[in-house]
Amino acid sequence: MRIARFVHSIDQSDSTPSYAFVEKDKSDGKDYLVEFDGYLFSSQQVRLTGKRYPVDGEGIRLLSPVLPSKVYGIMKNYRQPGDTSTPAANEMIVFSKPSTAVCGPDDPIVMPKWAKSLHFEAEVAVVIGRMARNVSEKDALSHVLGYTCVNDVTAYGIEGADPFAVRMKGFDTACPLGPWIQTECDPANAHMHMILNGTEQKKASGTTANLLHPIAQQISFISSFATLLPGDVILTGCADPTGELHDRDEAVVKVDEIGSLRNIVIAR
Amino acid sequence: MRIARFVHSIDQSDSTPSYAFVEKDKSDGKDYLVEFDGYLFSSQQVRLTGKRYPVDGEGIRLLSPVLPSKVYGIMKNYRQPGDTSTPAANEMIVFSKPSTAVCGPDDPIVMPKWAKSLHFEAEVAVVIGRMARNVSEKDALSHVLGYTCVNDVTAYGIEGADPFAVRMKGFDTACPLGPWIQTECDPANAHMHMILNGTEQKKASGTTANLLHPIAQQISFISSFATLLPGDVILTGCADPTGELHDRDEAVVKVDEIGSLRNIVIAR
Repeated sequence: MRIARFVHSIDQSDSTPSYAFVEKDKSDGKDYLVEFDGYLFSSQQVRLTGKRYPVDGEGIRLLSPVLPSKVYGIMKNYRQPGDTSTPAANEMIVFSKPSTAVCGPDDPIVMPKWAKSLHFEAEVAVVIGRMARNVSEKDALSHVLGYTCVNDVTAYGIEGADPFAVRMKGFDTACPLGPWIQTECDPANAHMHMILNGTEQKKASGTTANLLHPIAQQISFISSFATLLPGDVILTGCADPTGELHDRDEAVVKVDEIGSLRNIVIAR
Repeated sequence: MRIARFVHSIDQSDSTPSYAFVEKDKSDGKDYLVEFDGYLFSSQQVRLTGKRYPVDGEGIRLLSPVLPSKVYGIMKNYRQPGDTSTPAANEMIVFSKPSTAVCGPDDPIVMPKWAKSLHFEAEVAVVIGRMARNVSEKDALSHVLGYTCVNDVTAYGIEGADPFAVRMKGFDTACPLGPWIQTECDPANAHMHMILNGTEQKKASGTTANLLHPIAQQISFISSFATLLPGDVILTGCADPTGELHDRDEAVVKVDEIGSLRNIVIAR
């Protein structure tokens, strides 16, 4: 099941965001938004409104599929070729991004004036569906609603002045999420691709099978110190972050099992 | 004006939090909660409910006066005796705490199992009242709703494993706020006191007059990279953080111009 958040600028003059299931129409092979009302985190409590729009229809704009109260990320969490270290040998390094850093599909990534360079990181993001506090690794995945794509955008050039990466990783637009939440994705076998101006950046592509700390372990660890709320997001780790973004670049994070998240960079 | 958030466990069986103005009764000299309905961030839009409770009345429990979407703090922001450095000579170092770290007056501060030690920091917290994005230092204070007390609780012992202080400063209960928001407090002249088990910790007491980066500068700086939303909180800096908290300690942060925030430490 795929769940999207969107606005329809023609039908809804006030642009109130709506939620929808994304369903492929067998007759034309296209994706449609099947709008629903209700609580996102309980499929038992939703009601179809009867409205249906093509995803690429006029006036349709996808938004970040979720509004997290907080976003965590795991640093240096990818097994490089030849790396035989075990998860136990590596401490899990956690960073955070605020809710105000979140933006959605096709939203601009606005490079801050103070940034000397801006880097992409193509990752799978976990969307929490059920409050998680001190959950075991075994139970962790039962707290997941689904998965989406994220570009863990990071600004460089102020490392000494920003030891907690609050500015480097937390500026407005530093966390594009989308295009939707995929609830049926194997967290141990999702394939990320970074596509810059139409060209795949092979080094930045990879699979969650190579995460040093798998997703269940990440959820369990974070829930041991902070309560994860429905809608909270974890950026699970990227293959190789090396790659700069420049003004007018088109950055696409594609996860085969989820979809494609596209953003354009704007340097102020 | 003082604004509190509270529950009344006798009148309100569902314990829905309410807001109130805190007003001193001239006849008995005591503080009363004068309940109101409406939007906290616009005094024009509130309506008194007619209900009134003594602050220390039976079944009354004060809560964190605000539920921030995010909390920022400024590190090493205090002029020590003999320090003649200028704000311009010091980069402003910003850290963050998530909304789930917030707790209220009399709530327990729960020391995490992994913490080797737990430290208090008595500070004045700014509560944002109006969205702030790229605001100038001159305009910054017009975005403030008021001020409250905060204990910027920090856990030590995992420094190397937690370089972004996500766990050390962001664990559940690491951000007690309260007892209320004082809207008429001079941000350049508030006097903090740290009182541990009834004894003032003189080194940890001080005044916002000695902040290296004054509060208007903090708001302006943070708003240059992240949008501050109504209810967001900034921990403005402490005099001297040195001071440990232990199981069953009573930690009181008192700001003369605001009030007293009391919490009890529980070591798991």
